[in-house]
Amino acid sequence: MKLPEPLRGVVTAMITPLLDRDTLDIAGLKRLIDRLIDGEVNGLFILGTTGEAPSLSYQTRQEVIRHTCRHAAERIPIIVGITDTSYTESLRLGRYAADAGADGLVLAMPYYFSTSQRELVGYVQRLVAELPLPVFLYNAPTNTHHVLAPDTLRKLSELPKVRGVKDSGFDMIYFHKLVWLFRDRPDFTLLVGPEELTAEAVLLGGHGGMCGGSNICPKLYVDMYKAAASSNLEALRPLHSRIMQISSTVYHVTPENSSYLRCLKCAVSLTGICGDALAEPFEPLGPAERERVRRHMIAAGLLEN
Amino acid sequence: MKLPEPLRGVVTAMITPLLDRDTLDIAGLKRLIDRLIDGEVNGLFILGTTGEAPSLSYQTRQEVIRHTCRHAAERIPIIVGITDTSYTESLRLGRYAADAGADGLVLAMPYYFSTSQRELVGYVQRLVAELPLPVFLYNAPTNTHHVLAPDTLRKLSELPKVRGVKDSGFDMIYFHKLVWLFRDRPDFTLLVGPEELTAEAVLLGGHGGMCGGSNICPKLYVDMYKAAASSNLEALRPLHSRIMQISSTVYHVTPENSSYLRCLKCAVSLTGICGDALAEPFEPLGPAERERVRRHMIAAGLLEN
Amino acid sequence: MKLPEPLRGVVTAMITPLLDRDTLDIAGLKRLIDRLIDGEVNGLFILGTTGEAPSLSYQTRQEVIRHTCRHAAERIPIIVGITDTSYTESLRLGRYAADAGADGLVLAMPYYFSTSQRELVGYVQRLVAELPLPVFLYNAPTNTHHVLAPDTLRKLSELPKVRGVKDSGFDMIYFHKLVWLFRDRPDFTLLVGPEELTAEAVLLGGHGGMCGGSNICPKLYVDMYKAAASSNLEALRPLHSRIMQISSTVYHVTPENSSYLRCLKCAVSLTGICGDALAEPFEPLGPAERERVRRHMIAAGLLEN
Amino acid sequence: MKLPEPLRGVVTAMITPLLDRDTLDIAGLKRLIDRLIDGEVNGLFILGTTGEAPSLSYQTRQEVIRHTCRHAAERIPIIVGITDTSYTESLRLGRYAADAGADGLVLAMPYYFSTSQRELVGYVQRLVAELPLPVFLYNAPTNTHHVLAPDTLRKLSELPKVRGVKDSGFDMIYFHKLVWLFRDRPDFTLLVGPEELTAEAVLLGGHGGMCGGSNICPKLYVDMYKAAASSNLEALRPLHSRIMQISSTVYHVTPENSSYLRCLKCAVSLTGICGDALAEPFEPLGPAERERVRRHMIAAGLLEN
Repeated sequence: MKLPEPLRGVVTAMITPLLDRDTLDIAGLKRLIDRLIDGEVNGLFILGTTGEAPSLSYQTRQEVIRHTCRHAAERIPIIVGITDTSYTESLRLGRYAADAGADGLVLAMPYYFSTSQRELVGYVQRLVAELPLPVFLYNAPTNTHHVLAPDTLRKLSELPKVRGVKDSGFDMIYFHKLVWLFRDRPDFTLLVGPEELTAEAVLLGGHGGMCGGSNICPKLYVDMYKAAASSNLEALRPLHSRIMQISSTVYHVTPENSSYLRCLKCAVSLTGICGDALAEPFEPLGPAERERVRRHMIAAGLLEN
Repeated sequence: MKLPEPLRGVVTAMITPLLDRDTLDIAGLKRLIDRLIDGEVNGLFILGTTGEAPSLSYQTRQEVIRHTCRHAAERIPIIVGITDTSYTESLRLGRYAADAGADGLVLAMPYYFSTSQRELVGYVQRLVAELPLPVFLYNAPTNTHHVLAPDTLRKLSELPKVRGVKDSGFDMIYFHKLVWLFRDRPDFTLLVGPEELTAEAVLLGGHGGMCGGSNICPKLYVDMYKAAASSNLEALRPLHSRIMQISSTVYHVTPENSSYLRCLKCAVSLTGICGDALAEPFEPLGPAERERVRRHMIAAGLLEN
Repeated sequence: MKLPEPLRGVVTAMITPLLDRDTLDIAGLKRLIDRLIDGEVNGLFILGTTGEAPSLSYQTRQEVIRHTCRHAAERIPIIVGITDTSYTESLRLGRYAADAGADGLVLAMPYYFSTSQRELVGYVQRLVAELPLPVFLYNAPTNTHHVLAPDTLRKLSELPKVRGVKDSGFDMIYFHKLVWLFRDRPDFTLLVGPEELTAEAVLLGGHGGMCGGSNICPKLYVDMYKAAASSNLEALRPLHSRIMQISSTVYHVTPENSSYLRCLKCAVSLTGICGDALAEPFEPLGPAERERVRRHMIAAGLLEN
Repeated sequence: MKLPEPLRGVVTAMITPLLDRDTLDIAGLKRLIDRLIDGEVNGLFILGTTGEAPSLSYQTRQEVIRHTCRHAAERIPIIVGITDTSYTESLRLGRYAADAGADGLVLAMPYYFSTSQRELVGYVQRLVAELPLPVFLYNAPTNTHHVLAPDTLRKLSELPKVRGVKDSGFDMIYFHKLVWLFRDRPDFTLLVGPEELTAEAVLLGGHGGMCGGSNICPKLYVDMYKAAASSNLEALRPLHSRIMQISSTVYHVTPENSSYLRCLKCAVSLTGICGDALAEPFEPLGPAERERVRRHMIAAGLLEN
């Protein structure tokens, strides 16, 4: 499936349904894919941060790729996270994804060593040259502790296989600088990571977002995207407000930084798609926290009472 | 002058025109005030970060207050930064501002010691109780190294003198959380600091911005605000793009973090309002850098060739 | 009083005894000075971080200088912190200290704006040229958010008035690099800030430390210094262990970052020298915490039961 | 080979000799092992940060384990880094190491997600229960962005398989707190990571260090350890000074954070043991930098002219 240029809309950063810390829940994965396609999202992004990819074994990562590609069966674009600290393992995942029928790759910077912009340029140039699919570069400083500087991205965008950026830097000035920097490249995709920032990214020149919340309720995020893309602020504001409500309540049941991931998985499980097992080092929410998620979901219109 | 509730629009975070490292350029200050009032900004914010307040002696800070209030002469709301590491000096500045005729105060957290949210709450409660004017709390983590957590702000908003927030945290999720948290307080002002984020803040529920660039060219920022406030995205997008061009070029002539402040002051001086002297520890741009600012200004339509 | 070159031993980073948030406790200050001179410390450092200088008004800072110099009356070297965000106020404090009879100054970098090493060099060169006393540069990244790079210090050490460094960077590799870098300057003082690091600093080429704990019990820190300076490890180890016990227990009664300062002041008050009032934004420990400090002091041999 | 309790002395954090980005140089590895055993180091630590483990494929990591165990052949204790973001892969490496004949494991925290102390405790408890060898916990905040709090370590030290800590936190107060906290556990190993801090760690109660520089010249670091362990400060100081010279010159040929790793590997290659190939994302030093390393090595007595 050829990826649109640019890739627009809501691309769901998919959770990985698990039976235990490292066993894929294949049935749950299929149900989730069907929900997302039914919900009219514009793409699936598997094995990202929300998909807990770095916490999964390589065997499980390959199973996620294989079962997603097989079940989605050309119904929707699939892009696969191949971020890793090991070049060889990234490359292997990229080749596996191509063989399985995926449409694109997402690559964040290797996240153990502190690496300069000059070194990151070299790394991406060498790796992308060997990768068999289009690549989106992933700015993910919260987890990788590297910012991909705008100039670095500009330079790397000259590689034909580099098709765009997913920015999860939580810094909208940075994102707007990319929009300005790539004003002569209407084909170059600029997606934002956090669902809370998708509306403004799209209003001001971005192409879409990787909304994790669309795992729970794709319609809300697709509607928000459509309202933003059509500059319909009257429709947009209440949708955005509901997204902020979810962000402020459903995802914040514990003060730990893992709260987003654990609450999101809990919320998806409360919609009946799959269980709430997480990969290490995380554990599911306890019963009291789960009940609070449930009540917040009802308040936000994500569950019936 | 009674402050509107909420305070809306472009409130210029004014530079402090100087003759040397700590001597106020009174004539320049008056010209700048006149430009801003002519440019129809909605308020003046003196002695903030852009005003280099922490770098000025108390005598100079008092002169800035006195001359601004006298020259503006009730033509426009004036709010005064009183942020300091010393409670006593903050209080003294606040009283001086009230006596001089200012309309409100801006207070960021004391910025030497690491202080917990619990301690910040106590500090603000005690200080605000003694202050003679309405107060806007200032989230300025880049410089103070404290984030005012949304819950902290919610608690402090119960103090009658606390009228709003200026958020310079560069984190729009935080800002949107404030919008959501204060959805039942339409009187409570929510302003954003960075000019690059004002458009989206206003589009999605904020009241305005403290645009530093309006020192150079108030019209551009006022037009941007009006387009955002009226949801006119067709008008907004080119204005926002020009603001990003200024941010990406005019302000980035050196790689140092002081670049914004030094370039801004250089740019104002190139418009003929005042010189480019800075308070310590900064020095004006050199001739080559100044020439680059000039060329970027011409490219951005801020200067004629 | 001419400062030794280098200045060796325990220089107490003095607390500022207060009657309330900004009123000097003159009697307490005198008692503290007498304790320290009796305890044979090698110098007094007033208005540092431990002295809460940035939280005090200028009037109070001047009173601390005046009363300390008058009461110490040439019995011991006095060095005065003049760190400030305002060049003019730093200079004024430095001149006041010289007039009052102080022997040296301590200068950390201005702590509001992010400033490059190049800019810091210029700032120090300009300010030191105007200061009337010898200066120790103070590396205090925890509070100022600037590291003084070793090369920056090497450059600044060429100014005749710059006599040494106080390093509170909590990074012993940095300190050892200074020892190595200044191996040809036996006159250039290298002091370490944290009392927990004084032993190793002295064992491996440093000249002493600014032990805050010596406000409570000067003898312990002086004995530790002497053991380290004479390479007597058998004597040193139990003293160092007791210092670590104090650091791990007496200073850690709350999880807040202010714990050190509040516990230290509480501990001094429990020895009867002065009260435990703190400058804003901090408050004294509550009764339960105070009792825990008392019990930890007894366990560490700092109080009798 | 049963590990001594505590494990004392210089345990070399071994580089991984490579032929290219992910191919083990088996002959180089053997030469390096022989040098280290001849040099009388007290243990080999393979697949740590200095060994570039996270950048190597799993196949290569297994080869490093297999060839090291085979070649060292019970002549010296071997401990193996199994740190990974995936629990399953860590466990697999741990089992592989046990089968290959290694004597212990080193485990830092998973380094992609931000994880609370509570969560880290659970993670370590679960993983250690399944591991077949003694484990040293590795505090490596520079790379993992987690600090293992002293209380966390105290709790985890109750697991019988947990035998000690390798601290690469660059914070000697933290290390001294561990010494104080484990004062009743003379069997519990406390090693420090950075070679620049080994002397003081050993002088004040630690058991040794993981000196990376011992890849170049084991004798220097072994001599330093012996001098520190025998409290011979007269012998220690010039050795420590030379170690600081190496740190300040040989390792700092570029301003990039990768400088240490690239210079170390270059230096080893200049001693003729192996080439200077690095795993991605790093590249060897260029010829001019290599020449500077060579000259610094001569100045530090590590190479003959």
